[in-house]
Amino acid sequence: MEHVNDLVGFNNLKICQNDDWFKFSLESILLPNFVTINMRVKTILDLCSGNAPIPLILSQRTKSSIVGVEIQKDVYDLALKSIKLNHLEKQITMINDNTINLKHYFNGDSFDVITVNPPYFVNHHYSLKNHDIHKTYARHEIAATLEDILKMASFLLKNNGYIALVHRTERFFEIIKKMEEVNLIPKRVQFIYPKVGKNSNLVMIEGVKNGHEGVQFLDPLYIHNEDGTYKEEIKKIMHI
Amino acid sequence: MEHVNDLVGFNNLKICQNDDWFKFSLESILLPNFVTINMRVKTILDLCSGNAPIPLILSQRTKSSIVGVEIQKDVYDLALKSIKLNHLEKQITMINDNTINLKHYFNGDSFDVITVNPPYFVNHHYSLKNHDIHKTYARHEIAATLEDILKMASFLLKNNGYIALVHRTERFFEIIKKMEEVNLIPKRVQFIYPKVGKNSNLVMIEGVKNGHEGVQFLDPLYIHNEDGTYKEEIKKIMHI
Repeated sequence: MEHVNDLVGFNNLKICQNDDWFKFSLESILLPNFVTINMRVKTILDLCSGNAPIPLILSQRTKSSIVGVEIQKDVYDLALKSIKLNHLEKQITMINDNTINLKHYFNGDSFDVITVNPPYFVNHHYSLKNHDIHKTYARHEIAATLEDILKMASFLLKNNGYIALVHRTERFFEIIKKMEEVNLIPKRVQFIYPKVGKNSNLVMIEGVKNGHEGVQFLDPLYIHNEDGTYKEEIKKIMHI
Repeated sequence: MEHVNDLVGFNNLKICQNDDWFKFSLESILLPNFVTINMRVKTILDLCSGNAPIPLILSQRTKSSIVGVEIQKDVYDLALKSIKLNHLEKQITMINDNTINLKHYFNGDSFDVITVNPPYFVNHHYSLKNHDIHKTYARHEIAATLEDILKMASFLLKNNGYIALVHRTERFFEIIKKMEEVNLIPKRVQFIYPKVGKNSNLVMIEGVKNGHEGVQFLDPLYIHNEDGTYKEEIKKIMHI
């Protein structure tokens, strides 16, 4: 069912979603908090935008122009609705297309920052896919592989521009290799743990196009307390 | 000045050190706690042993035979003294030689587990080296590079044997690549943080010779509380 969520705390940002087939995730709140946005940032691109939670939250941190890209028409429509509801049409533009087609829209070296919360699972023939096509697109590398996304990001980023992504920890080494292959040099890493005593399941990585080597491993994020409530740090990021 | 430290908690293990030129580090206590020692482990090798803190602490966890290797004669002598003081001559053997010469002592596929707390700094010509030769050997890759050590470890480990090492976080990606180059596949990683809110400075990595890919990032270790005292978890590992 489609409805409007209030992102409490983010100046009451409103976000449209459809609980039956598309919900934004906690990562979509963590990533726009993690990414470096400095004074020089004028243009931001968010790939695999979904219903645009990352552009919407980024609009609270910066006045830069933000472009979101979402391949699925009805998810893209949800993004447009949210942008309108929040009167952010001037700041956020959406493109309804596949990431691999972005050379039709932009020249190389066009963006200062790129964010992406990509599909997490390789599209093996034997992958257990969700019967719901919306969830399948959001979770599996159907439209574009991680390589496709990183290659395009490297093309579209300005020299020394930042890319920030969130992904499953089990793919960490593979992601680092693939980033380096396209000259996106990892500079900041933050592991996410469901709670104390568990292994990390998610990781946020920030790279710099043609950056120098040398990476920082930030103090990790823990999501939940023992009793299942959110950690104070997470509440702070969520503004709740 | 040379003297004997009691490792309180480790059944009062005694360890000889010389405060002027060689002290064992906290990492030497963390690594033998981190490494996987299962029931099948019969033979353990500790490279860059120093005054043998890792073999000594491992002797509290396992009855397996342990070989330590230390290139510096007077540091090796300290190790021998400690082993004698603790009546561990039957379990722990020391070799006074360079890691790169170990093929003269052992065949390939000889060990179930290898531990190593190697020198942390590349021996650049411009490296600021310590005037004390003992500290220089312990801190800089003078006698053997990281590649030398990993290559030898891969040769000496049995198939599916474990290697555990501790190193500076800033060299993490380099270490992972070099491990993979010699078929030591990283399986468990634990970052060490000086305290909450700081970046990681050290990391422990366990690899398996010819292991399958797929790595776990364990809940990290924090060393100190805000007030500079040791965290409870660290005290537990140190048995204090």
